[in-house]
Amino acid sequence: MLDKFFNPKSVAVIGASRDETSVGHAIFKNALKSKARVYPVNPNAKQILGVKCYPNVKDIKNEVDLAVIVVPAAITPQILIDCAEKKVENAVIISAGFSETGNKSLEAEIKRLSDELGIRVIGPNCLGVLNAKNNFSFFTGQFKDGEIVLISQSGALGVGMLDWIIDKGIGLRSFVSVGNMTDVEFSDLVEYFSKDKKTKVIALYIESFKNARRFLKACSKSNKTIIALKSGSTSKGGKAASTHTGALATDDNIVSGAFKQYGVLRVGEIEDLMYCSLASAWMPKPAGNKVVVVTNAGGLGVISADDIEEQDLKTAEVPVKELSKFLPKNWSHSNPVDLVGDARADRYEKVFRSLDKKSFDALLIILTPQSMTEPLKTARSIVDFSRKIGKPVYTCFFGGEKVEKANEYLLKNNIPVFEEPGEAVETLKLLLES
Amino acid sequence: MLDKFFNPKSVAVIGASRDETSVGHAIFKNALKSKARVYPVNPNAKQILGVKCYPNVKDIKNEVDLAVIVVPAAITPQILIDCAEKKVENAVIISAGFSETGNKSLEAEIKRLSDELGIRVIGPNCLGVLNAKNNFSFFTGQFKDGEIVLISQSGALGVGMLDWIIDKGIGLRSFVSVGNMTDVEFSDLVEYFSKDKKTKVIALYIESFKNARRFLKACSKSNKTIIALKSGSTSKGGKAASTHTGALATDDNIVSGAFKQYGVLRVGEIEDLMYCSLASAWMPKPAGNKVVVVTNAGGLGVISADDIEEQDLKTAEVPVKELSKFLPKNWSHSNPVDLVGDARADRYEKVFRSLDKKSFDALLIILTPQSMTEPLKTARSIVDFSRKIGKPVYTCFFGGEKVEKANEYLLKNNIPVFEEPGEAVETLKLLLES
Repeated sequence: MLDKFFNPKSVAVIGASRDETSVGHAIFKNALKSKARVYPVNPNAKQILGVKCYPNVKDIKNEVDLAVIVVPAAITPQILIDCAEKKVENAVIISAGFSETGNKSLEAEIKRLSDELGIRVIGPNCLGVLNAKNNFSFFTGQFKDGEIVLISQSGALGVGMLDWIIDKGIGLRSFVSVGNMTDVEFSDLVEYFSKDKKTKVIALYIESFKNARRFLKACSKSNKTIIALKSGSTSKGGKAASTHTGALATDDNIVSGAFKQYGVLRVGEIEDLMYCSLASAWMPKPAGNKVVVVTNAGGLGVISADDIEEQDLKTAEVPVKELSKFLPKNWSHSNPVDLVGDARADRYEKVFRSLDKKSFDALLIILTPQSMTEPLKTARSIVDFSRKIGKPVYTCFFGGEKVEKANEYLLKNNIPVFEEPGEAVETLKLLLES
Repeated sequence: MLDKFFNPKSVAVIGASRDETSVGHAIFKNALKSKARVYPVNPNAKQILGVKCYPNVKDIKNEVDLAVIVVPAAITPQILIDCAEKKVENAVIISAGFSETGNKSLEAEIKRLSDELGIRVIGPNCLGVLNAKNNFSFFTGQFKDGEIVLISQSGALGVGMLDWIIDKGIGLRSFVSVGNMTDVEFSDLVEYFSKDKKTKVIALYIESFKNARRFLKACSKSNKTIIALKSGSTSKGGKAASTHTGALATDDNIVSGAFKQYGVLRVGEIEDLMYCSLASAWMPKPAGNKVVVVTNAGGLGVISADDIEEQDLKTAEVPVKELSKFLPKNWSHSNPVDLVGDARADRYEKVFRSLDKKSFDALLIILTPQSMTEPLKTARSIVDFSRKIGKPVYTCFFGGEKVEKANEYLLKNNIPVFEEPGEAVETLKLLLES
């Protein structure tokens, strides 16, 4: 049943509008790009963007798989009744003005109707869905198919993360803004996407649960990596969360303990949610705590060594004799392997080839643009090597525009790119403990 | 005496080269753009980039304020002797191959010569200097004058930070790659830049000290904000640092205690060094711990409230009645002030104007691009407001390309821009404790 939210053959946008600044216009326009047949519904328009407009969803002759409801909150119950008459079984309610503004009775009404009429509802007070498989999206922006599903209880934060992902050209399987979750909630979505072969990671931003036990059960049954940023963890944050989505705060320690028990990786920052998702989707999980760092910048090597020790990981042994055969005299003679500032791509590559695969669990490659540096060529070597090695390979090319193309190339080839070594090491630690 | 490193009227680049891939070429080419007269010195070339080349620094008839030495390490002593004969009093030795490769005697020889001949030396094993005042730079890239001086013991990391700064269009007063510090070291530079009126912040990347006591004394006497990332803080990092610049590790707790006592703000990550520098250069220090958060994204409000509580800061009281007069019904009715997703710039502005200045110490403004959002217009309101308020104003516009122009505008107008609320709150906390 949930499949029609993501792969509808026909969609009615109820509240589609000619006003280009309105949400009803934007959603309709974006939905038009999908493979689905999209009908605008609005009693005050004859056509929108050249598409024939219907006064009521019931006036559409063909079948409607999914209704998207963008009308004032007060009339949403009537719209649901219309949808039921039209035999629509799935509805996304974008409209706001329910429990989050104190209007609990209206939200209860929606819940009652969706149960009685047998309509599955995402929302209300949400921003909708995106599904790469059929190019179906409520959102502007070019996206590409990938292995990560992002589910967010905060629409705006979700869209912020979505933009971050789209901006970097990272693939995304699906995005869901769940809103107030009167019906469809985290558990349903975890169950649904756990059945999707391409999905590898389900990343969640959670403020509160409707049914925490069901969620944990769904997670423990899933064969996907599930990563959650659960906010509202402090008393102030919990208070802010309750006004935001009408959420009830949960004791934070219980949450952490339960997540651990049921195999949910809990992270504390937005950045961690993004980076852990990329690293899990693209790289194997680290099998142990021994890290090799290869760098052309001594300082970043020193910082990495600090980070590794602070996170209770280990710097692996490296074959010093072997490496000394071709590295310049002033290389570091230990791990972090400081290749020295004039390293070209081939020096990186030779080091990769010289490493004993059994001696380490993860590789962190650092590069700063110096006069001899070949960022893009080095990125190519990394991509080739990472495909052979079967261990997590993380990168940190540090230096603005000069490494931009190399970073794009790495991301395009599913190599995690970090902004500084500390983030890479933290991600390794989080995944190792998960 | 140190002034000739940064404001030389005439510079000899000894080891300037016609080979476009060489460091000697790049430095010469970059130095040519400055106001100084620049002479290439190379016995094997008649001219370089159309400029007459001299076989020896002694052959230059005019005075030479600064020698830049980019020759093989072994002949640097002879070059220093030549410089002394030419009465050059300042030399930057770029050449590597000294204590960092185990060649301690050659480094001792350089030190002895610089003392005996009375030549102040930056380096060896460094990447040189940049000074915005006279457009003097060893580095490629457009930079603009600013309030921050960046001093780095790691050349590559320094250049990485430099690129980050240049890339964002942030102003920089000066950059110094100090290398092995046989002569000029952190203390000298802190003393020198403390006398520069425009400089507000001195940011340092430190692996080790030549004379820690002198450094601390210089810092305590300085009226600038001094922020230091001291790495090699763990045993592994310390080991890496000692091979990197031949540095001797210091007990880490002693470092932290001494920094605190002498007014040096110690940070733990590269990001913190950058953000604390921006925030200190552009904004007043927070006078207390009460923060107001204004956001159009409820989720980021919740996360901010968590961050604020986790860092032992406080969410300030906000004038709920006053704000309710013009905010939509479903605003959060507390701090974080959630303006709701459809907030345009004027809604932000009205909130700024309604705040009681006495009730808070810092303002964090969050924005995610939603359908009604006006990022650039909101950025303009923030710039106007921040000029009047006399308190730190930090921003976090979250959402890739859609907020790029707004973020550029904010940075151009000296408003700190953070990648997520957690970083802004951490920076506030660090500066509050400094």
